[in-house]
Amino acid sequence: MSSTTPAAKRQKSNKDTPYHLIYWPGIPGRGEHVRLALEEAGATYTDTAHIKDGVNEVLALIDAKHTGDDLNPPICAPPVLKHGDLVINQTPNILLYLGPKLGLAPSPGGDDEDGIYVVNELALTALDGLSNEPHDCHHPIATGLYYEDQKEESLRKSKDYVANRLPKFLGYFERVLKSKASGDGPWLYGGKLTYADLVLFQCVDGIKFMFPKATKKLQDSGDYTGVFALYEAVKDRPKIKEYLASDRRQKYSMGIYRYYEELDVTE
Amino acid sequence: MSSTTPAAKRQKSNKDTPYHLIYWPGIPGRGEHVRLALEEAGATYTDTAHIKDGVNEVLALIDAKHTGDDLNPPICAPPVLKHGDLVINQTPNILLYLGPKLGLAPSPGGDDEDGIYVVNELALTALDGLSNEPHDCHHPIATGLYYEDQKEESLRKSKDYVANRLPKFLGYFERVLKSKASGDGPWLYGGKLTYADLVLFQCVDGIKFMFPKATKKLQDSGDYTGVFALYEAVKDRPKIKEYLASDRRQKYSMGIYRYYEELDVTE
Repeated sequence: MSSTTPAAKRQKSNKDTPYHLIYWPGIPGRGEHVRLALEEAGATYTDTAHIKDGVNEVLALIDAKHTGDDLNPPICAPPVLKHGDLVINQTPNILLYLGPKLGLAPSPGGDDEDGIYVVNELALTALDGLSNEPHDCHHPIATGLYYEDQKEESLRKSKDYVANRLPKFLGYFERVLKSKASGDGPWLYGGKLTYADLVLFQCVDGIKFMFPKATKKLQDSGDYTGVFALYEAVKDRPKIKEYLASDRRQKYSMGIYRYYEELDVTE
Repeated sequence: MSSTTPAAKRQKSNKDTPYHLIYWPGIPGRGEHVRLALEEAGATYTDTAHIKDGVNEVLALIDAKHTGDDLNPPICAPPVLKHGDLVINQTPNILLYLGPKLGLAPSPGGDDEDGIYVVNELALTALDGLSNEPHDCHHPIATGLYYEDQKEESLRKSKDYVANRLPKFLGYFERVLKSKASGDGPWLYGGKLTYADLVLFQCVDGIKFMFPKATKKLQDSGDYTGVFALYEAVKDRPKIKEYLASDRRQKYSMGIYRYYEELDVTE
Protein backbone atom coordinates (compact mmCIF):
# COMPACT_ATOMS: atom_id res chain seq x y z
CA MET A 1 0.00 0.00 0.00
CA SER A 2 1.13 3.54 -0.66
CA SER A 3 -0.08 6.98 0.29
CA THR A 4 0.36 8.32 -3.24
CA THR A 5 -2.45 7.29 -5.54
CA PRO A 6 -1.92 5.94 -9.05
CA ALA A 7 -3.59 9.08 -10.38
CA ALA A 8 -0.80 11.23 -8.98
CA LYS A 9 1.92 9.00 -10.38
CA ARG A 10 0.73 7.89 -13.79
CA GLN A 11 2.49 9.75 -16.56
CA LYS A 12 0.38 10.72 -19.51
CA SER A 13 3.37 11.48 -21.66
CA ASN A 14 4.96 8.11 -22.22
CA LYS A 15 2.32 6.51 -24.46
CA ASP A 16 4.31 7.22 -27.58
CA THR A 17 5.63 3.66 -27.56
CA PRO A 18 4.61 0.53 -29.44
CA TYR A 19 1.94 -1.70 -27.94
CA HIS A 20 3.34 -4.84 -26.34
CA LEU A 21 1.22 -7.99 -26.20
CA ILE A 22 2.10 -10.61 -23.60
CA TYR A 23 0.49 -13.98 -24.32
CA TRP A 24 1.31 -17.68 -24.54
CA PRO A 25 3.32 -18.47 -27.65
CA GLY A 26 2.07 -21.34 -29.83
CA ILE A 27 -1.70 -20.77 -29.84
CA PRO A 28 -3.96 -18.00 -31.15
CA GLY A 29 -6.01 -18.16 -27.93
CA ARG A 30 -7.56 -15.05 -26.43
CA GLY A 31 -4.51 -13.05 -27.49
CA GLU A 32 -5.72 -13.39 -31.08
CA HIS A 33 -8.52 -10.88 -30.53
CA VAL A 34 -5.92 -8.29 -29.57
CA ARG A 35 -3.69 -9.20 -32.52
CA LEU A 36 -6.51 -8.84 -35.04
CA ALA A 37 -7.31 -5.33 -33.78
CA LEU A 38 -3.65 -4.29 -33.95
CA GLU A 39 -3.20 -5.85 -37.40
CA GLU A 40 -6.36 -4.32 -38.90
CA ALA A 41 -5.26 -0.90 -37.66
CA GLY A 42 -1.70 -1.37 -38.94
CA ALA A 43 -0.41 -0.56 -35.45
CA THR A 44 3.19 -1.08 -34.39
CA TYR A 45 3.36 -3.79 -31.75
CA THR A 46 5.57 -6.42 -30.23
CA ASP A 47 4.30 -9.85 -29.24
CA THR A 48 5.81 -12.44 -26.88
CA ALA A 49 4.65 -15.10 -29.35
CA HIS A 50 7.45 -13.97 -31.66
CA ILE A 51 10.14 -13.03 -29.13
CA LYS A 52 12.80 -15.55 -28.09
CA ASP A 53 11.87 -16.96 -24.65
CA GLY A 54 8.71 -14.85 -24.76
CA VAL A 55 6.98 -17.42 -22.60
CA ASN A 56 9.18 -16.37 -19.69
CA GLU A 57 7.64 -12.93 -19.79
CA VAL A 58 4.18 -14.48 -19.48
CA LEU A 59 5.28 -16.72 -16.63
CA ALA A 60 6.95 -13.87 -14.71
CA LEU A 61 3.85 -11.72 -14.92
CA ILE A 62 1.39 -14.32 -13.69
CA ASP A 63 3.70 -15.70 -10.98
CA ALA A 64 2.07 -15.63 -7.55
CA LYS A 65 5.04 -13.62 -6.34
CA HIS A 66 4.35 -10.84 -8.80
CA THR A 67 2.86 -7.92 -6.91
CA GLY A 68 2.32 -5.43 -9.71
CA ASP A 69 3.97 -2.03 -9.52
CA ASP A 70 3.19 1.44 -8.21
CA LEU A 71 0.49 1.98 -10.82
CA ASN A 72 -0.79 -1.43 -11.80
CA PRO A 73 -2.10 -4.30 -9.68
CA PRO A 74 -0.76 -7.81 -10.34
CA ILE A 75 -2.19 -9.71 -13.29
CA CYS A 76 -4.44 -12.77 -12.99
CA ALA A 77 -4.04 -14.24 -16.48
CA PRO A 78 -2.88 -13.32 -19.99
CA PRO A 79 -3.43 -11.74 -22.49
CA VAL A 80 -1.77 -8.63 -21.10
CA LEU A 81 -1.19 -5.35 -22.88
CA LYS A 82 1.66 -3.06 -21.90
CA HIS A 83 1.47 0.47 -23.22
CA GLY A 84 3.68 3.08 -21.64
CA ASP A 85 3.28 2.65 -17.91
CA LEU A 86 -0.09 0.92 -18.22
CA VAL A 87 -0.25 -2.87 -17.77
CA ILE A 88 -3.75 -4.32 -18.23
CA ASN A 89 -5.31 -7.69 -18.85
CA GLN A 90 -8.70 -9.22 -19.70
CA THR A 91 -9.34 -9.51 -23.45
CA PRO A 92 -12.48 -7.31 -23.61
CA ASN A 93 -10.74 -4.72 -21.41
CA ILE A 94 -7.68 -4.55 -23.67
CA LEU A 95 -9.96 -4.15 -26.69
CA LEU A 96 -11.91 -1.43 -24.89
CA TYR A 97 -8.66 0.44 -24.35
CA LEU A 98 -7.38 -0.07 -27.89
CA GLY A 99 -10.68 0.34 -29.78
CA PRO A 100 -11.02 4.13 -29.90
CA LYS A 101 -7.23 4.59 -30.23
CA LEU A 102 -7.12 2.31 -33.28
CA GLY A 103 -10.25 3.72 -34.91
CA LEU A 104 -12.11 0.47 -34.20
CA ALA A 105 -14.76 1.85 -31.84
CA PRO A 106 -16.58 5.13 -31.29
CA SER A 107 -14.59 7.43 -29.04
CA PRO A 108 -16.23 8.29 -25.69
CA GLY A 109 -15.58 11.96 -26.43
CA GLY A 110 -16.85 11.74 -30.02
CA ASP A 111 -20.18 12.06 -31.83
CA ASP A 112 -21.49 8.73 -30.58
CA GLU A 113 -20.31 9.05 -26.99
CA ASP A 114 -22.15 5.94 -25.81
CA GLY A 115 -21.36 3.78 -28.82
CA ILE A 116 -18.38 2.22 -27.03
CA TYR A 117 -20.81 0.55 -24.59
CA VAL A 118 -22.64 -1.09 -27.47
CA VAL A 119 -19.40 -2.33 -29.03
CA ASN A 120 -18.20 -3.57 -25.62
CA GLU A 121 -21.44 -5.48 -24.96
CA LEU A 122 -21.26 -7.16 -28.36
CA ALA A 123 -17.62 -8.18 -27.79
CA LEU A 124 -18.43 -9.49 -24.30
CA THR A 125 -21.36 -11.53 -25.62
CA ALA A 126 -19.32 -13.06 -28.45
CA LEU A 127 -16.54 -13.98 -26.02
CA ASP A 128 -19.02 -15.50 -23.55
CA GLY A 129 -20.96 -17.65 -25.97
CA LEU A 130 -18.50 -18.34 -28.77
CA SER A 131 -15.15 -18.49 -26.96
CA ASN A 132 -15.61 -19.29 -23.24
CA GLU A 133 -18.34 -21.86 -23.80
CA PRO A 134 -16.44 -23.69 -26.58
CA HIS A 135 -13.42 -23.82 -24.24
CA ASP A 136 -15.62 -25.38 -21.58
CA CYS A 137 -16.78 -27.98 -24.12
CA HIS A 138 -13.37 -29.66 -23.75
CA HIS A 139 -12.87 -28.64 -20.12
CA PRO A 140 -16.31 -28.74 -18.47
CA ILE A 141 -15.09 -29.99 -15.09
CA ALA A 142 -11.67 -28.50 -14.42
CA THR A 143 -9.22 -26.34 -16.38
CA GLY A 144 -6.46 -27.99 -14.33
CA LEU A 145 -7.22 -31.48 -15.63
CA TYR A 146 -6.48 -32.90 -19.07
CA TYR A 147 -9.26 -33.28 -21.62
CA GLU A 148 -8.67 -37.02 -21.36
CA ASP A 149 -9.77 -36.86 -17.72
CA GLN A 150 -13.14 -35.30 -18.59
CA LYS A 151 -13.98 -36.81 -21.98
CA GLU A 152 -17.41 -38.11 -21.06
CA GLU A 153 -18.55 -34.77 -19.66
CA SER A 154 -17.02 -33.00 -22.66
CA LEU A 155 -19.09 -35.02 -25.07
CA ARG A 156 -22.26 -34.32 -23.10
CA LYS A 157 -21.53 -30.61 -23.00
CA SER A 158 -20.55 -30.45 -26.68
CA LYS A 159 -23.83 -32.06 -27.69
CA ASP A 160 -25.75 -29.41 -25.78
CA TYR A 161 -23.51 -26.70 -27.18
CA VAL A 162 -24.04 -27.49 -30.85
CA ALA A 163 -27.75 -28.24 -30.39
CA ASN A 164 -28.66 -25.24 -28.25
CA ARG A 165 -26.00 -22.72 -27.42
CA LEU A 166 -24.25 -22.28 -30.77
CA PRO A 167 -27.53 -21.64 -32.68
CA LYS A 168 -28.63 -19.31 -29.89
CA PHE A 169 -25.54 -17.10 -30.14
CA LEU A 170 -25.33 -17.18 -33.95
CA GLY A 171 -29.04 -16.30 -34.01
CA TYR A 172 -28.47 -13.43 -31.63
CA PHE A 173 -25.74 -11.92 -33.80
CA GLU A 174 -27.88 -12.45 -36.89
CA ARG A 175 -30.59 -10.33 -35.23
CA VAL A 176 -28.00 -7.69 -34.34
CA LEU A 177 -26.92 -7.57 -37.99
CA LYS A 178 -30.54 -7.14 -39.10
CA SER A 179 -31.25 -4.40 -36.56
CA LYS A 180 -31.48 -0.75 -37.53
CA ALA A 181 -28.64 0.05 -35.14
CA SER A 182 -26.25 -2.02 -37.28
CA GLY A 183 -26.43 0.57 -40.06
CA ASP A 184 -25.38 -0.18 -43.63
CA GLY A 185 -22.90 -2.84 -44.70
CA PRO A 186 -21.87 -6.13 -43.15
CA TRP A 187 -20.97 -4.77 -39.69
CA LEU A 188 -22.58 -5.16 -36.27
CA TYR A 189 -22.88 -1.55 -35.25
CA GLY A 190 -23.24 1.88 -36.81
CA GLY A 191 -22.33 0.96 -40.39
CA LYS A 192 -18.61 0.81 -39.56
CA LEU A 193 -16.10 -1.91 -38.78
CA THR A 194 -15.48 -2.13 -35.02
CA TYR A 195 -13.45 -4.50 -32.91
CA ALA A 196 -16.68 -6.37 -32.13
CA ASP A 197 -16.71 -7.49 -35.78
CA LEU A 198 -13.13 -8.72 -35.45
CA VAL A 199 -14.03 -10.63 -32.26
CA LEU A 200 -17.01 -12.26 -33.97
CA PHE A 201 -14.82 -13.18 -36.96
CA GLN A 202 -12.25 -14.88 -34.73
CA CYS A 203 -14.98 -16.71 -32.78
CA VAL A 204 -16.60 -18.02 -35.98
CA ASP A 205 -13.19 -19.03 -37.31
CA GLY A 206 -12.53 -20.97 -34.11
CA ILE A 207 -15.93 -22.63 -34.15
CA LYS A 208 -15.42 -23.70 -37.77
CA PHE A 209 -12.18 -25.37 -36.68
CA MET A 210 -13.57 -27.01 -33.54
CA PHE A 211 -17.04 -28.03 -34.75
CA PRO A 212 -16.72 -28.19 -38.56
CA LYS A 213 -19.76 -30.43 -39.11
CA ALA A 214 -22.12 -28.50 -36.86
CA THR A 215 -20.95 -25.15 -38.21
CA LYS A 216 -21.41 -26.28 -41.81
CA LYS A 217 -24.90 -27.53 -41.02
CA LEU A 218 -25.82 -24.19 -39.45
CA GLN A 219 -24.30 -22.26 -42.34
CA ASP A 220 -26.18 -24.43 -44.87
CA SER A 221 -29.46 -23.75 -43.07
CA GLY A 222 -29.39 -20.20 -44.43
CA ASP A 223 -30.49 -18.81 -41.08
CA TYR A 224 -27.23 -17.03 -40.36
CA THR A 225 -26.28 -15.46 -43.67
CA GLY A 226 -25.39 -12.15 -42.04
CA VAL A 227 -22.95 -13.74 -39.59
CA PHE A 228 -21.16 -15.71 -42.30
CA ALA A 229 -21.10 -12.66 -44.61
CA LEU A 230 -19.45 -10.68 -41.81
CA TYR A 231 -16.94 -13.50 -41.41
CA GLU A 232 -16.02 -13.31 -45.11
CA ALA A 233 -15.96 -9.51 -45.08
CA VAL A 234 -13.42 -9.46 -42.24
CA LYS A 235 -11.36 -12.18 -43.91
CA ASP A 236 -11.21 -10.05 -47.06
CA ARG A 237 -9.94 -6.89 -45.37
CA PRO A 238 -6.53 -6.29 -46.99
CA LYS A 239 -4.55 -6.12 -43.75
CA ILE A 240 -6.36 -9.06 -42.19
CA LYS A 241 -5.84 -11.10 -45.36
CA GLU A 242 -2.12 -10.35 -45.31
CA TYR A 243 -1.96 -11.18 -41.60
CA LEU A 244 -3.82 -14.48 -41.91
CA ALA A 245 -1.40 -15.59 -44.64
CA SER A 246 1.65 -14.60 -42.60
CA ASP A 247 3.73 -16.48 -40.03
CA ARG A 248 2.31 -14.19 -37.34
CA ARG A 249 -0.99 -16.06 -37.50
CA GLN A 250 -0.46 -19.13 -35.33
CA LYS A 251 -2.24 -22.42 -35.93
CA TYR A 252 -4.96 -23.74 -33.66
CA SER A 253 -3.61 -26.44 -31.39
CA MET A 254 -4.19 -26.95 -27.65
CA GLY A 255 -5.82 -23.61 -26.88
CA ILE A 256 -9.45 -22.52 -26.70
CA TYR A 257 -10.52 -24.02 -30.01
CA ARG A 258 -9.44 -27.67 -30.31
CA TYR A 259 -10.44 -30.28 -32.81
CA TYR A 260 -11.43 -33.57 -31.25
CA GLU A 261 -13.19 -35.75 -33.80
CA GLU A 262 -15.46 -37.26 -31.15
CA LEU A 263 -16.72 -33.80 -30.10
CA ASP A 264 -17.55 -32.78 -33.67
CA VAL A 265 -21.17 -33.80 -33.25
CA THR A 266 -24.13 -32.45 -35.16
CA GLU A 267 -26.91 -33.20 -32.70
CA MET B 1 -30.32 -1.57 -41.59
CA SER B 2 -30.47 2.18 -41.95
CA SER B 3 -28.43 4.83 -43.70
CA THR B 4 -28.41 7.11 -40.66
CA THR B 5 -25.89 6.03 -38.08
CA PRO B 6 -26.65 5.84 -34.36
CA ALA B 7 -24.19 8.68 -33.82
CA ALA B 8 -26.38 11.02 -35.82
CA LYS B 9 -29.52 10.02 -33.99
CA ARG B 10 -28.52 9.57 -30.39
CA GLN B 11 -29.65 12.47 -28.26
CA LYS B 12 -27.25 13.61 -25.60
CA SER B 13 -29.89 15.66 -23.81
CA ASN B 14 -32.26 13.07 -22.45
CA LYS B 15 -30.04 11.48 -19.80
CA ASP B 16 -31.70 13.49 -17.03
CA THR B 17 -33.90 10.51 -16.19
CA PRO B 18 -33.64 7.83 -13.50
CA TYR B 19 -31.69 4.68 -14.28
CA HIS B 20 -33.91 1.70 -15.05
CA LEU B 21 -32.68 -1.82 -14.28
CA ILE B 22 -34.30 -4.71 -16.13
CA TYR B 23 -33.59 -8.07 -14.51
CA TRP B 24 -35.35 -11.25 -13.37
CA PRO B 25 -37.38 -10.63 -10.21
CA GLY B 26 -36.83 -13.04 -7.32
CA ILE B 27 -33.06 -13.50 -7.34
CA PRO B 28 -30.11 -11.18 -6.70
CA GLY B 29 -28.29 -12.69 -9.70
CA ARG B 30 -26.05 -10.61 -11.89
CA GLY B 31 -28.43 -7.66 -11.51
CA GLU B 32 -27.22 -7.36 -7.93
CA HIS B 33 -23.89 -5.90 -9.01
CA VAL B 34 -25.74 -3.07 -10.71
CA ARG B 35 -28.04 -2.55 -7.71
CA LEU B 36 -25.13 -2.31 -5.26
CA ALA B 37 -23.49 0.43 -7.36
CA LEU B 38 -26.74 2.39 -7.62
CA GLU B 39 -27.46 1.96 -3.89
CA GLU B 40 -23.97 2.95 -2.74
CA ALA B 41 -24.20 6.10 -4.86
CA GLY B 42 -27.71 6.91 -3.63
CA ALA B 43 -28.85 7.09 -7.26
CA THR B 44 -32.50 7.28 -8.27
CA TYR B 45 -33.46 4.12 -10.12
CA THR B 46 -36.33 1.83 -10.96
CA ASP B 47 -36.03 -1.95 -10.96
CA THR B 48 -38.24 -4.58 -12.62
CA ALA B 49 -37.73 -6.70 -9.50
CA HIS B 50 -40.06 -4.33 -7.67
CA ILE B 51 -42.51 -3.42 -10.43
CA LYS B 52 -45.77 -5.36 -10.87
CA ASP B 53 -45.36 -7.80 -13.79
CA GLY B 54 -41.77 -6.62 -14.13
CA VAL B 55 -40.83 -10.02 -15.48
CA ASN B 56 -42.78 -9.24 -18.66
CA GLU B 57 -40.38 -6.41 -19.38
CA VAL B 58 -37.46 -8.84 -19.16
CA LEU B 59 -39.22 -11.38 -21.38
CA ALA B 60 -40.15 -8.80 -24.04
CA LEU B 61 -36.59 -7.55 -24.27
CA ILE B 62 -34.95 -10.95 -24.70
CA ASP B 63 -37.62 -12.32 -27.04
CA ALA B 64 -36.15 -13.61 -30.30
CA LYS B 65 -38.55 -11.26 -32.13
CA HIS B 66 -37.05 -8.21 -30.44
CA THR B 67 -34.94 -6.38 -32.98
CA GLY B 68 -33.66 -3.46 -30.92
CA ASP B 69 -34.38 0.08 -32.03
CA ASP B 70 -32.77 2.75 -34.19
CA LEU B 71 -29.95 3.23 -31.70
CA ASN B 72 -29.55 -0.02 -29.82
CA PRO B 73 -29.10 -3.57 -31.07
CA PRO B 74 -31.28 -6.31 -29.57
CA ILE B 75 -30.29 -7.67 -26.16
CA CYS B 76 -28.93 -11.18 -25.59
CA ALA B 77 -29.58 -11.54 -21.85
CA PRO B 78 -30.33 -9.47 -18.74
CA PRO B 79 -29.30 -7.49 -16.73
CA VAL B 80 -30.14 -4.53 -18.94
CA LEU B 81 -29.78 -0.85 -18.10
CA LYS B 82 -31.98 1.75 -19.73
CA HIS B 83 -30.84 5.34 -19.37
CA GLY B 84 -32.37 7.92 -21.66
CA ASP B 85 -32.21 6.44 -25.14
CA LEU B 86 -29.41 4.05 -24.27
CA VAL B 87 -30.24 0.36 -23.71
CA ILE B 88 -27.21 -1.78 -22.78
CA ASN B 89 -26.56 -5.16 -21.22
CA GLN B 90 -23.64 -7.24 -19.89
CA THR B 91 -22.98 -6.68 -16.16
CA PRO B 92 -19.38 -5.43 -16.49
CA ASN B 93 -20.46 -3.14 -19.35
CA ILE B 94 -23.28 -1.59 -17.32
CA LEU B 95 -20.88 -1.02 -14.43
CA LEU B 96 -18.36 0.52 -16.81
CA TYR B 97 -21.02 2.97 -17.94
CA LEU B 98 -22.26 3.76 -14.43
CA GLY B 99 -18.93 3.78 -12.58
CA PRO B 100 -17.60 7.24 -13.47
CA LYS B 101 -21.13 8.74 -13.40
CA LEU B 102 -21.72 7.45 -9.86
CA GLY B 103 -18.27 8.38 -8.54
CA LEU B 104 -17.35 4.69 -8.32
CA ALA B 105 -14.51 4.65 -10.85
CA PRO B 106 -11.92 7.09 -12.19
CA SER B 107 -13.33 9.15 -15.03
CA PRO B 108 -11.65 8.64 -18.44
CA GLY B 109 -11.30 12.40 -18.70
CA GLY B 110 -10.00 12.82 -15.14
CA ASP B 111 -6.64 12.75 -13.35
CA ASP B 112 -6.29 8.98 -13.63
CA GLU B 113 -7.44 8.65 -17.22
CA ASP B 114 -6.52 4.97 -17.49
CA GLY B 115 -7.76 3.95 -14.04
CA ILE B 116 -11.09 2.81 -15.47
CA TYR B 117 -9.26 -0.01 -17.30
CA VAL B 118 -7.81 -1.26 -14.03
CA VAL B 119 -11.21 -1.17 -12.32
CA ASN B 120 -12.81 -2.90 -15.31
CA GLU B 121 -10.19 -5.69 -15.35
CA LEU B 122 -10.70 -6.32 -11.63
CA ALA B 123 -14.48 -6.47 -12.04
CA LEU B 124 -14.16 -8.81 -15.03
CA THR B 125 -11.83 -11.12 -13.13
CA ALA B 126 -14.09 -11.27 -10.07
CA LEU B 127 -17.10 -12.03 -12.28
CA ASP B 128 -15.18 -14.74 -14.18
CA GLY B 129 -13.80 -16.61 -11.20
CA LEU B 130 -16.24 -15.88 -8.41
CA SER B 131 -19.58 -15.62 -10.24
CA ASN B 132 -19.48 -17.45 -13.60
CA GLU B 133 -17.48 -20.41 -12.29
CA PRO B 134 -19.71 -20.91 -9.20
CA HIS B 135 -22.72 -20.84 -11.52
CA ASP B 136 -21.11 -23.56 -13.61
CA CYS B 137 -20.58 -25.63 -10.44
CA HIS B 138 -24.31 -26.39 -10.46
CA HIS B 139 -24.65 -26.25 -14.26
CA PRO B 140 -21.43 -27.68 -15.71
CA ILE B 141 -23.05 -29.40 -18.68
CA ALA B 142 -26.00 -27.29 -19.84
CA THR B 143 -27.74 -24.15 -18.60
CA GLY B 144 -30.90 -25.48 -20.25
CA LEU B 145 -31.00 -28.60 -18.05
CA TYR B 146 -31.96 -28.82 -14.38
CA TYR B 147 -29.29 -29.24 -11.74
CA GLU B 148 -30.82 -32.63 -11.01
CA ASP B 149 -29.87 -33.70 -14.53
CA GLN B 150 -26.18 -32.91 -13.99
CA LYS B 151 -25.63 -33.65 -10.30
CA GLU B 152 -22.70 -35.99 -10.72
CA GLU B 153 -20.78 -33.55 -12.91
CA SER B 154 -21.70 -30.72 -10.52
CA LEU B 155 -20.12 -32.51 -7.60
CA ARG B 156 -16.97 -33.19 -9.56
CA LYS B 157 -16.70 -29.58 -10.66
CA SER B 158 -17.48 -28.22 -7.18
CA LYS B 159 -14.70 -30.31 -5.69
CA ASP B 160 -12.23 -28.83 -8.14
CA TYR B 161 -13.62 -25.36 -7.58
CA VAL B 162 -13.20 -25.28 -3.80
CA ALA B 163 -9.83 -27.06 -3.93
CA ASN B 164 -8.23 -25.08 -6.75
CA ARG B 165 -10.19 -22.25 -8.31
CA LEU B 166 -11.64 -20.51 -5.25
CA PRO B 167 -8.25 -20.28 -3.47
CA LYS B 168 -6.68 -19.12 -6.74
CA PHE B 169 -9.07 -16.19 -7.16
CA LEU B 170 -9.17 -15.21 -3.47
CA GLY B 171 -5.37 -15.36 -3.52
CA TYR B 172 -5.25 -13.15 -6.59
CA PHE B 173 -7.41 -10.48 -4.98
CA GLU B 174 -5.38 -10.72 -1.78
CA ARG B 175 -2.28 -9.89 -3.85
CA VAL B 176 -4.12 -7.00 -5.49
CA LEU B 177 -5.01 -5.64 -2.03
CA LYS B 178 -1.37 -5.90 -0.94
CA SER B 179 -0.05 -4.19 -4.09
CA LYS B 180 1.14 -0.60 -4.09
CA ALA B 181 -1.48 0.25 -6.71
CA SER B 182 -4.24 -0.49 -4.20
CA GLY B 183 -3.30 2.60 -2.17
CA ASP B 184 -4.38 3.09 1.43
CA GLY B 185 -7.42 1.55 3.08
CA PRO B 186 -9.32 -1.65 2.38
CA TRP B 187 -9.96 -1.05 -1.34
CA LEU B 188 -8.63 -2.73 -4.47
CA TYR B 189 -7.43 0.30 -6.39
CA GLY B 190 -6.15 3.79 -5.78
CA GLY B 191 -7.14 4.10 -2.12
CA LYS B 192 -10.80 4.72 -3.01
CA LEU B 193 -13.94 2.63 -3.13
CA THR B 194 -14.73 1.60 -6.73
CA TYR B 195 -17.38 -0.63 -8.19
CA ALA B 196 -14.77 -3.40 -8.37
CA ASP B 197 -14.91 -3.51 -4.55
CA LEU B 198 -18.70 -3.81 -4.67
CA VAL B 199 -18.43 -6.63 -7.21
CA LEU B 200 -15.92 -8.49 -5.04
CA PHE B 201 -18.17 -8.00 -1.99
CA GLN B 202 -21.17 -9.49 -3.79
CA CYS B 203 -19.08 -12.40 -5.08
CA VAL B 204 -17.74 -13.22 -1.60
CA ASP B 205 -21.25 -12.91 -0.18
CA GLY B 206 -22.51 -15.38 -2.77
CA ILE B 207 -19.65 -17.80 -2.18
CA LYS B 208 -20.29 -17.71 1.57
CA PHE B 209 -23.89 -18.70 0.83
CA MET B 210 -23.08 -21.41 -1.71
CA PHE B 211 -19.96 -22.94 -0.17
CA PRO B 212 -20.19 -22.03 3.55
CA LYS B 213 -17.81 -24.74 4.77
CA ALA B 214 -15.10 -24.15 2.17
CA THR B 215 -15.32 -20.38 2.56
CA LYS B 216 -15.02 -20.60 6.36
CA LYS B 217 -12.02 -22.89 6.03
CA LEU B 218 -10.32 -20.43 3.67
CA GLN B 219 -11.20 -17.48 5.91
CA ASP B 220 -9.84 -19.32 8.98
CA SER B 221 -6.57 -20.02 7.16
CA GLY B 222 -5.68 -16.35 7.56
CA ASP B 223 -4.37 -16.23 4.00
CA TYR B 224 -7.07 -13.91 2.72
CA THR B 225 -7.47 -11.33 5.49
CA GLY B 226 -7.52 -8.45 3.01
CA VAL B 227 -10.37 -9.93 0.98
CA PHE B 228 -12.51 -10.59 4.04
CA ALA B 229 -11.70 -7.15 5.48
CA LEU B 230 -12.88 -5.61 2.20
CA TYR B 231 -16.05 -7.68 2.47
CA GLU B 232 -16.76 -6.30 5.95
CA ALA B 233 -15.83 -2.75 4.92
CA VAL B 234 -18.36 -2.78 2.08
CA LYS B 235 -21.00 -4.34 4.33
CA ASP B 236 -20.50 -1.49 6.82
CA ARG B 237 -20.95 1.32 4.31
CA PRO B 238 -24.03 3.20 5.61
CA LYS B 239 -26.02 3.04 2.36
CA ILE B 240 -25.08 -0.59 1.69
CA LYS B 241 -26.01 -1.52 5.26
CA GLU B 242 -29.40 0.12 4.89
CA TYR B 243 -29.91 -1.57 1.53
CA LEU B 244 -28.96 -5.05 2.75
CA ALA B 245 -31.49 -4.73 5.59
CA SER B 246 -34.24 -3.54 3.24
CA ASP B 247 -36.82 -5.43 1.19
CA ARG B 248 -34.96 -4.36 -1.94
CA ARG B 249 -32.25 -6.94 -1.18
CA GLN B 250 -33.63 -10.22 -2.49
CA LYS B 251 -32.73 -13.57 -0.99
CA TYR B 252 -30.55 -16.11 -2.75
CA SER B 253 -32.65 -18.86 -4.29
CA MET B 254 -32.33 -20.45 -7.74
CA GLY B 255 -29.92 -17.98 -9.28
CA ILE B 256 -26.15 -17.95 -9.63
CA TYR B 257 -25.37 -18.77 -6.02
CA ARG B 258 -27.35 -21.79 -4.81
CA TYR B 259 -26.97 -23.82 -1.68
CA TYR B 260 -26.92 -27.56 -2.29
CA GLU B 261 -25.70 -29.37 0.81
CA GLU B 262 -23.99 -32.06 -1.28
CA LEU B 263 -21.94 -29.44 -3.15
CA ASP B 264 -20.74 -27.77 0.06
CA VAL B 265 -17.53 -29.76 0.04
CA THR B 266 -14.24 -28.80 1.64
CA GLU B 267 -11.86 -30.86 -0.44
